[in-house]
Amino acid sequence: MSKIKLFIAATIDGFIARKDGSLDWLFELPNPNNIDHGYEKFFNTIGVVVMGRKTYDEVLGFDVEWPYGNCKTFVITSDKNFSTNTENTFVLNQINKKSIEQLKSESQKDIWLVGGGKTITAFLNLDAVDEMILSIIPIVLGEGIRLFPDGPKETRFHLTNTEKFETGIVNLWFTKQEQNI
Amino acid sequence: MSKIKLFIAATIDGFIARKDGSLDWLFELPNPNNIDHGYEKFFNTIGVVVMGRKTYDEVLGFDVEWPYGNCKTFVITSDKNFSTNTENTFVLNQINKKSIEQLKSESQKDIWLVGGGKTITAFLNLDAVDEMILSIIPIVLGEGIRLFPDGPKETRFHLTNTEKFETGIVNLWFTKQEQNI
Repeated sequence: MSKIKLFIAATIDGFIARKDGSLDWLFELPNPNNIDHGYEKFFNTIGVVVMGRKTYDEVLGFDVEWPYGNCKTFVITSDKNFSTNTENTFVLNQINKKSIEQLKSESQKDIWLVGGGKTITAFLNLDAVDEMILSIIPIVLGEGIRLFPDGPKETRFHLTNTEKFETGIVNLWFTKQEQNI
Repeated sequence: MSKIKLFIAATIDGFIARKDGSLDWLFELPNPNNIDHGYEKFFNTIGVVVMGRKTYDEVLGFDVEWPYGNCKTFVITSDKNFSTNTENTFVLNQINKKSIEQLKSESQKDIWLVGGGKTITAFLNLDAVDEMILSIIPIVLGEGIRLFPDGPKETRFHLTNTEKFETGIVNLWFTKQEQNI
């Protein structure tokens, strides 16, 4: 069964961006050997990409090649007139147990929940985040946009792995804790 | 030279307690072998303890034996009439570079900055937190009291070590990044 996965960077104090959304503190982290912090290995497991409408617009605004290759992409928006203009990209008008089953049937490979906060919260509230890779950046920002800004419900995870990189970033792997076990 | 150290537990989403201060989610974490997550090893390095007035009152409210043994303890409060009623405990009326030097001269061993948020922020803003051990608890709370609630200034750290425990907690060791190196 396909798994739904998060892969997200946060500061020591739990922020994913400055208040204005900027990520300069992340890009400024010295990385002389240009290591990818596990990104390629992660992306090789992915067949489907899901993101909110605002995140979709942000990705388009980066002015780079569409970064999700051949992955089928779903953009979540309640706007029924919205249409996408990137290849292999579709619209999902709501997230519920049925649409999550549909997403899982799209590919044998896994599903990357790219963001943003509202979308991630919707998935957490449906117990639909199966794995989470949290990259902790060794900085205290003091203020900013929180990791899960919309207050998802309380959810327990298992820590399955940790990986420390020469850049000072550490990746923490969590899987969802099955309540019935 | 004595170092000033934090040792603090936070959720995946960066909270140290529920909104009402409660820590039930932390104490309920299964720990069948009663491991101490590095506490004893940490405490053996400590000669001096520092905390804010509110934290001091909370510790007294726990109704347990004074937990800081023979460590000289400093309680920070602007209240000049405040006096302590625990052994080897003194009052500091303000935190500045001079009082930090004084703290560092008290013992050959290190200084534990116990909390709370206001006190930690004051030390961070003076570049006076030399080491930080962050214990990440594998739970998303959704809301609560943030790790550094008073918005300290931006501070870069080095990740020096990680340690994963059978309980699913991971400890991350950070040291202050010297700006001049």
